[in-house]
Order: sequence, then C-alpha cells, then structure tokens
Amino acid sequence: MITVNENFLKLQAGYLFPEIGKRRRAFQQAHPDAKIISMGIGDVTQPIAPAVIEAMHKAVDEMGKKETFHGYDDGGIGYAFLREAITKNDFRSRGVSIDIDEIFVSDGAKSDTANIQELFGLDNIIAVADPVYPVYVDTNVMAGRTGAVAGQGTYLKIVYMPATADNNFVPELPKEKADMIYLCFPNNPTGAVATKEQLKKWVDYAKENKAVILFDAAYEAYISDSQIPHSIYEIEGAKEVAIEFRSFSKTAGFTGLRCAFTVVPKELRAFTRAGQSVALNPLWNRRLCTKFNGVSYVTQSAAAAVYADEGKKQIRKTIDIYMNNAKVIRESLTTLGYKVYGGINAPYIWVKTPEGVGSWQFFDLLLNKAHVVTTPGAGFGPAGEGYVRLTAFGNPPDVVEALGRIKAISK
Amino acid sequence: MITVNENFLKLQAGYLFPEIGKRRRAFQQAHPDAKIISMGIGDVTQPIAPAVIEAMHKAVDEMGKKETFHGYDDGGIGYAFLREAITKNDFRSRGVSIDIDEIFVSDGAKSDTANIQELFGLDNIIAVADPVYPVYVDTNVMAGRTGAVAGQGTYLKIVYMPATADNNFVPELPKEKADMIYLCFPNNPTGAVATKEQLKKWVDYAKENKAVILFDAAYEAYISDSQIPHSIYEIEGAKEVAIEFRSFSKTAGFTGLRCAFTVVPKELRAFTRAGQSVALNPLWNRRLCTKFNGVSYVTQSAAAAVYADEGKKQIRKTIDIYMNNAKVIRESLTTLGYKVYGGINAPYIWVKTPEGVGSWQFFDLLLNKAHVVTTPGAGFGPAGEGYVRLTAFGNPPDVVEALGRIKAISK
Repeated sequence: MITVNENFLKLQAGYLFPEIGKRRRAFQQAHPDAKIISMGIGDVTQPIAPAVIEAMHKAVDEMGKKETFHGYDDGGIGYAFLREAITKNDFRSRGVSIDIDEIFVSDGAKSDTANIQELFGLDNIIAVADPVYPVYVDTNVMAGRTGAVAGQGTYLKIVYMPATADNNFVPELPKEKADMIYLCFPNNPTGAVATKEQLKKWVDYAKENKAVILFDAAYEAYISDSQIPHSIYEIEGAKEVAIEFRSFSKTAGFTGLRCAFTVVPKELRAFTRAGQSVALNPLWNRRLCTKFNGVSYVTQSAAAAVYADEGKKQIRKTIDIYMNNAKVIRESLTTLGYKVYGGINAPYIWVKTPEGVGSWQFFDLLLNKAHVVTTPGAGFGPAGEGYVRLTAFGNPPDVVEALGRIKAISK
Repeated sequence: MITVNENFLKLQAGYLFPEIGKRRRAFQQAHPDAKIISMGIGDVTQPIAPAVIEAMHKAVDEMGKKETFHGYDDGGIGYAFLREAITKNDFRSRGVSIDIDEIFVSDGAKSDTANIQELFGLDNIIAVADPVYPVYVDTNVMAGRTGAVAGQGTYLKIVYMPATADNNFVPELPKEKADMIYLCFPNNPTGAVATKEQLKKWVDYAKENKAVILFDAAYEAYISDSQIPHSIYEIEGAKEVAIEFRSFSKTAGFTGLRCAFTVVPKELRAFTRAGQSVALNPLWNRRLCTKFNGVSYVTQSAAAAVYADEGKKQIRKTIDIYMNNAKVIRESLTTLGYKVYGGINAPYIWVKTPEGVGSWQFFDLLLNKAHVVTTPGAGFGPAGEGYVRLTAFGNPPDVVEALGRIKAISK
C-alpha cells in the first residue's frame, strides 16, 4: 500500500501567500469595481531593465540558430560567464574571495532555501527567527525535522528566536541547542539589518557549536548604509560555517524570470553521526546534478547583463524608485501615528497595528475599507502578531493612492 | 553538531553523465585535435523553432514594459494559457480528459521525477526497470528510501525489474511488494515502447496493490506507431493510480530553456499508516507553492507556441530529422553486424556490444578509436551491461560521420 509522507499533514492550512490571494479574490468577486492595491506579496512592478531586455533578445536569437544554440547547461550549476560576473561583482568588490566552483546558479532563492535542508540529517535542530519567512519552517516540517504543531502557528522541535522591537528585530543567540540556523538580513518581513558585530556573534556561535548558518541575503541590494555587510562572508571565518543565498528577483526584478544563486564554500563541513566530517560543496553539487538541470540560457544571459555597466545603472534606478516608495510609506504612516520599522536598508516596512487590533484583523480592515492588501505579521510567526508587512515594490502612484486611502480610514 | 544526510553517502561515485563528461574531457585534453562527436548524453542539437523564437521575443518585450510586465506566476504552477494548451493538445485530442488544475508546469521532468518522491512515506518500496534512468533511483537513495549499495550498481530495498531482449525490454510485473513503480515509455535508455495491453496490466496491478505508477512520458513525441499510447491516461482507470511526467526538452528542443509539466489527477490517493486516504493533487500543489516559484514567463510563452499551428509543424520537422538519424543509426549498425533495439518509437538506440566486451570497455573503445561518445548501458543498471545507448539527437552530418568512423574500426 502506498503511504503518504505524513509530515505534509502536519502543515497548517494554507501557505501564507495563497491564503492572502484567496481573501483578496473573494473580496474582489464581492466588489468587482474595487481597485485593489497590493502592498502584500513581495512582487515587483517595474519592468526589466533595457540592457537586460537587450541581452535576452540576443540570447533568444542565439537559441534560434544551430551554430549558437545552447542545450543543457553542462553540469546544471550555471554558465561560467555568469558565475564569474557574480564572484567579481558581488564578492571580490567587497573584499571577499569566492571561487566560481562555490557558486551554484538556480531558479530561485525560494527553491534553494527550501532544498538546502536535504543535505542535513533529520536529527538536526533548526533555529529560526520569529517572525520568519515561512519557507524555512515549512520545508523542514515536510522533511520530518520538526514535531507537530504546537499552537500559534509554531511547531515542536524548532528553536524560535523572537525578533522584537526590544532587540531591534535582530534575535539573540539561542540558549537551546541549534544546528541549522536560518538568518535573513536585510530581513523579510521586518526590514531589519544586522551589523558586522552582530553577525560575528553568530559566526562565532556556529563555530563553537559546530552549527551551520543558512544566510538569506536576497535583499542585500537594498542596503543603503555603507557600514552594513551585504554578505555574511564579510565576517572572518564565515566560509567555514555559512551558506549564502542570493537572488535576482528583487535586485533586478526577476520574479517572473527566475534566477538566483547559492554559495556553498569548500571549507564548509557537516558530520556523520560517527563524527566523520563531510564537505558540503560536492554534496550540493551532487544534489543539483541529480535533481535539477540548470537555468534557461536566456535567463542566465539576462542575469549576466545585470552586472554590465548599463545594467548596473538601470537596476540602481529601479531600486531607487522602490526605496523612495519605502520612504513615502514610512513617513506617511508615521505622520498618521503608526509605529513603523524597516524600509531604510530593506524593501519591507513592518508596521505595528493599532492597539488591540490583531494582524489578520488589520489585514481584513485594510482590504475591506482601503482596498489595500498587506501581509499579516502573524502569518510569519507568533512574534509577528500585532504587525503587518508592507512592501515597497508598488508602482509609485499606487503607493501614494494606497496611503491616501489608509489616511482616510485612519481618521 | 550539524549532521549530514548520510543517505547521500550511499550514492555511488559520480552520477553517470558527469562521469561520461569527465572521460570525454580527459580524452579531449590528451588529444586536442580530435573532433569528438557526442551520441551519449541526450542533448538536442537543432535550434528552437522559429515560431517559438518569435513568441519568446514577444514575451521579452512584454517584460520590458510596465503595462505588460509579468512578475511571479501566481501560485507557481503555470499560466492558465499554457495549461489550457496542454490539456487540449496533449490529452483531449487523444480522448483523455485532464483538468487544468491537474497540470503543474515546472522547469524540467528531471526535477519533477526527482521531487515527486517527497510526497510519499519512506517505508514505501520502489520498483524500477533495470536498466533505468538513474534519477529515479538516486533521488530515492538520497531520501533514505533504499538500503546500501548491493553491488553491480544496485541498492538494497529496491525492486529491480529486468528489461531484456527476452521481454522486448518491457518488464514483467514484480513478484515482490512494490508501492512506487517508475515506468518510462518510450523508454530511456532502451527505446522500447509499451502497448495499451501491457500498460493495462500495470494499471490493474497498481489498483490491486494500492500502488502508484510514476509514468515518465518525456519521449512520447517520438512515437510513430499509431497503436502505441502517448499517455498512461489512455488506459482506463489510470487516473486513480498514475502520475505522468512530460517535457518540452525533447519534444521541442527545450533542454536549454527548461520547461516540463506533471499531471497529478484529482482521483489519485495515498494512505496514512492508519489507513486514511489522502488526495495527492493538493499535496503536490502545496509542495510546489512552498518550494518553487514557477517557470519564467518567457519560457512558458515559448512552450505555448509549441502548440500553435506553426509551432506544431516546425517541431514535427525537427523530430523527423532526429528520427531519420535514428533510422540511419539502426540501419548502419545492423549492416555492421550489431544487434540494435529501439529507435523506431523513441530517440534512443540500444546497441548490444560485441561478444565479451563490457559497456564501459566499449564506451572507451568508441571514444578512443572513433572519437564518438556513447552512454554505457551498465551505467543504467546491471541488465544494461553489454549494451551502449546511442541518441538520435545529433546533427545529421555528424551522425553520418560517426557511423563512418565506427564502420572503420569495426572491420
């Protein structure tokens, strides 16, 4: 008899974003004339940069001619031309040395942060911030690395590290044993960033405890403060303990093109139960060449264009548009008396809900009264209760209009 | 202490194709002037069809304008325009009714056949043909569903079903208990096909034993015999027991563009250990929306163009080129006294090695003497020993040249 993976049945109903989509659609059906503005799901609105479009047209033409046609990306881990651009621009330029064999190109940071847990034993304890991007948790639930639901959206056998206004949304080191530590800076959902000193504490902790840090840096392009590290590898010794995830989704608007990459340093090791150390770089390579066949040549050509001079300038302009949105959101809501966090080094703004109003309640209120979609903080974990997340990825006129509507109902 | 997933350490050295690539590169380095012809890895050589190129240019332009920009593929399971084209052309046209909610678009059949096992309990016994596409086996090894290596490239706790010349390379029903049955028709690597009667036996077996059939139909476009089913759903009752995998890689030359889809019928169920039945369609949906973010809009637009009139005609021409290669390979090798199988309803030709010459030995001989890369049958399992696989995906002049060289060394 075919049995089901019962770990899937532990998952709580509805992944956060589909649930939001469902409520949005239900509202739209009931109010067909309402012009809903989304500040919820972190999808971008600005078009792909002209230099990237040009590179894609060129790549498409190459695919149409026998002499320049590209089949499988040999090895499935990304073309050397892209991995070389990555190591030069994202790492060498910041004084970090990453070999191109340590870079693995993929279809998304969601896929990679979801799949990376496969490399590790089921006996490891995971630690996540609370609130947290749900993918880190749900994928470990599916794998059987957690216990059952413990209430308030949490699971047994996970170490939750509260990120609150009191600690500036940078969690403290866990007191419990933790082997796989997920960190995300600039943070989704709170928009917080970590300093070098703060990250160094985590690297030291991981070394001492033989833990691995899974560092999600998908939003690094939004850092405006020159003192804030863009990569965990800017911290000495991090290559021995950390895997880093990057994405073109928010950097260059690739949510609909799908390209990201993951860095697995050669120094990084895990251990057998008998204590033998095993390098993780060849293991991730093996996983990819067994379960994945690489990213579209057209998309990889697009990603490479992000690093060329024209591309760099153009994507910077788009990021500036979004960060101006963030500024407008922060300032407007502050004026209205809301307490807001983030939005300075990150495209997310973390807004405290009015006294006595829960996250989903505030979500429903903004949807019903202002026709604005947000993301309820409680969807990211118990410590997210009492907050909603706004994203800065809207069209500027929509952002202004949304804030006007929020103002109208806040009187 | 971070522990490694020790199941990965059970894997035998080198996934087949990287090993072939390694030997090829070593030979090329030692003989820089040798013009190696690949008939090994199943990569295509003909360019993307003009109608598909045109659709991609259009999609790229859309991505460059704010009004027509596409971000996340909502839900991550494929645009309705593509899933509608699929259900109409691949299924309804053959009398099979598949709802678009049963179709999940992905980046490759390799990914899907690799990932599908996550839905099932680790206690299930998998059954695979021998020889077999290594992905089915290796991904179950990684998950811990098998035992250790048992010798000759096999693993304990897997039911191997020999596919030999005696059974026309269509395996018999297993005598042992089997819960997850991987079938691939047209077959990779043997090029064999299964009749409706043969598939019906499998569907009946699965129903009786509450097993699930994982049916890989990535090569269905190469079927020339009108009596051979293209989909397992042409067999009555198959929707209750089978998942089907399709791909644009070989159908339309998308190896470098990455698009495929998987059908998970709503009727299909697995069971908890307590005997409760669980529908697999929502489970696969949940897996995708948690671990995946959909396929590039440009690629999905390309895939949809494969189903338009012009696209259909153009991809048919390319398939004809490949199937003519297959004919040339079959006839030439037969004339040289080789025993050959497949290549009539499939792009693979399965060639018996000369008496007393092993698979890898014949691979090395053809590489060293004829500068032709093949795939050693033994790499697909013990019953593949004594065979090599040739693919029909070469450039026609290269195929002719390769056969001339093989003729020269066969005297």
